[in-house]
Amino acid sequence: MKRFVNDPKDFVAEILTGIARANPDTLRYEPKYNLIVRADAPVDNKVGIVQGSGSGHEPAHVMNVGPGMLDVACPGDVFAAPPLDYVLAAIRQVATDAGVLLLVNNYTGDRMVFEMAQEMVEAEGIQAQLLFVDDDVAVQDSTYTIGRRGVAGNFFVIKAVGAAAEKGHTLDEVRAIGERVNANMRSIGVALTACSPPAKSAPLFDLAADEIEFGVGIHGEPGRRREKLRTANEIADDMVDMVVSDKPFKPGSQVALMINGLGSTPISELYLLYGHAHQRLASKGIDVARSYVGNYCTALDMAGASVTMLELDDEISSFLDAPASTALRIF
Amino acid sequence: MKRFVNDPKDFVAEILTGIARANPDTLRYEPKYNLIVRADAPVDNKVGIVQGSGSGHEPAHVMNVGPGMLDVACPGDVFAAPPLDYVLAAIRQVATDAGVLLLVNNYTGDRMVFEMAQEMVEAEGIQAQLLFVDDDVAVQDSTYTIGRRGVAGNFFVIKAVGAAAEKGHTLDEVRAIGERVNANMRSIGVALTACSPPAKSAPLFDLAADEIEFGVGIHGEPGRRREKLRTANEIADDMVDMVVSDKPFKPGSQVALMINGLGSTPISELYLLYGHAHQRLASKGIDVARSYVGNYCTALDMAGASVTMLELDDEISSFLDAPASTALRIF
Repeated sequence: MKRFVNDPKDFVAEILTGIARANPDTLRYEPKYNLIVRADAPVDNKVGIVQGSGSGHEPAHVMNVGPGMLDVACPGDVFAAPPLDYVLAAIRQVATDAGVLLLVNNYTGDRMVFEMAQEMVEAEGIQAQLLFVDDDVAVQDSTYTIGRRGVAGNFFVIKAVGAAAEKGHTLDEVRAIGERVNANMRSIGVALTACSPPAKSAPLFDLAADEIEFGVGIHGEPGRRREKLRTANEIADDMVDMVVSDKPFKPGSQVALMINGLGSTPISELYLLYGHAHQRLASKGIDVARSYVGNYCTALDMAGASVTMLELDDEISSFLDAPASTALRIF
Repeated sequence: MKRFVNDPKDFVAEILTGIARANPDTLRYEPKYNLIVRADAPVDNKVGIVQGSGSGHEPAHVMNVGPGMLDVACPGDVFAAPPLDYVLAAIRQVATDAGVLLLVNNYTGDRMVFEMAQEMVEAEGIQAQLLFVDDDVAVQDSTYTIGRRGVAGNFFVIKAVGAAAEKGHTLDEVRAIGERVNANMRSIGVALTACSPPAKSAPLFDLAADEIEFGVGIHGEPGRRREKLRTANEIADDMVDMVVSDKPFKPGSQVALMINGLGSTPISELYLLYGHAHQRLASKGIDVARSYVGNYCTALDMAGASVTMLELDDEISSFLDAPASTALRIF
């Protein structure tokens, strides 16, 4: 597998260095603990929003730091939870009297380190609450989880809790809005190819030239079924139907629809999927009121896409529409 | 090659349908001529900005339509210039008394159709001027060009002429700012893999597992040299040096630095390249005042990246900073 890499052990640090150099006025990089921190953190009287997880999912979550989003991101190595002392350092950097919310995708390794960190910072007098994201409908328990996995819907939780914190809501209120967003959303992903970590020269799993993995996880872990490649419309229909029936999303509901790329799928194909998914939802009487098309949570260089749907109400919509600013920008 | 596709002959139309469904209030799709048009076009008293080119470079240029950017995009089939009657329809949709600027990347096929279109619409009484983009320093003449190719720097030209038009500048003034941006910028790209059009099952060219194409074109056409894969830092150094020495960019100058993905390279690797390129420029005394990291102009599913540098002055910076809005957004 060819990629732009130097020594693989420097991969994460070099990505973070690039993010900081591209955003010198708004973000800072703490090399000792591999943190990307909002430059003006801690922000007085505002709940601090913390996320940690493995690397390899960029832009999640190191490129989601900034006003209205995360105060700090604490990445581990590729597909590995961050070390406990790094998580503690992250929390201490952004903690205020308003407390901190620890946002964790539901993977056993990440849960373990964040649950320990919560106990330890509380002993220091920092008020800290946990919020677990588990939007993936593919499997109940999985290779790395008890319960469902947290995937691309994580973006919506960050957006909502980030906006609520910025508006001055209390820690209890911020966590409550995050839990409501998590409860309101569902995701599923499909891989066309496997992914390859920088330190390995081979893909993490094998997919034949005519096979796809339906319900794949964002570390390449198995999904619901291995099947033959079909047309984009057939795949989109299956993804939409599985997401809709799980919640279930009902006729008349208003949703945000995200088509997320898993790493190496061109944006052209994501829009092609979007167009058909939108039509499928219209035929079910579901109104797509907001659209998100692009790479939000990836699995290194995996080719594939995921569908996330979030049921909207006025409060959630207002948090999605609130101003935010991160490393990710076009202009 | 696996991708999300239905019948390949519908590929472009289905992408455009997706773009329009995701942006119902701001864009419209004209299926008869494959156009993406700003919903409020023509905008009275504003110079209309038109671009056409082959498809397969998304987000360029169909996702660059909106206030402060293009008024209309007219894509051809994958890697093929749009038909003359489509270009004429595009121009007529956005023409005003202020005239239209026809923005063309310097490829022989695109030039030919736009030069004919200019003559024809002028005969109809539409004031139309041409502007050719040719930022690629890799080769002088190439497979598809006489003179240099137009690549990712096209984004900066659109941004500047779009802002100037929005501010009410005349057609002569808008073209002059576009020409100055084009003269002030240089680009070069490197491919790690070839690309595969949807209608083909094989890559357009062959690269061995340990080879890269230095100076590749955005249709997979040959570059300056075929060479062995090296570290990301070594590749970034060579790209930066080639761009800097061509103009040349001098110590003390202020630049915008773009690291553009060619289609299937993860954003993590683009930031890794950015971090090192930024350092290389600092060592030469060149000040990176603005950063652009992401996919701006791609070659389908090619893995690779390009470097674009644009020398800034107060006027160009003000146009880069002007508000703009397109299909591309994170939030």
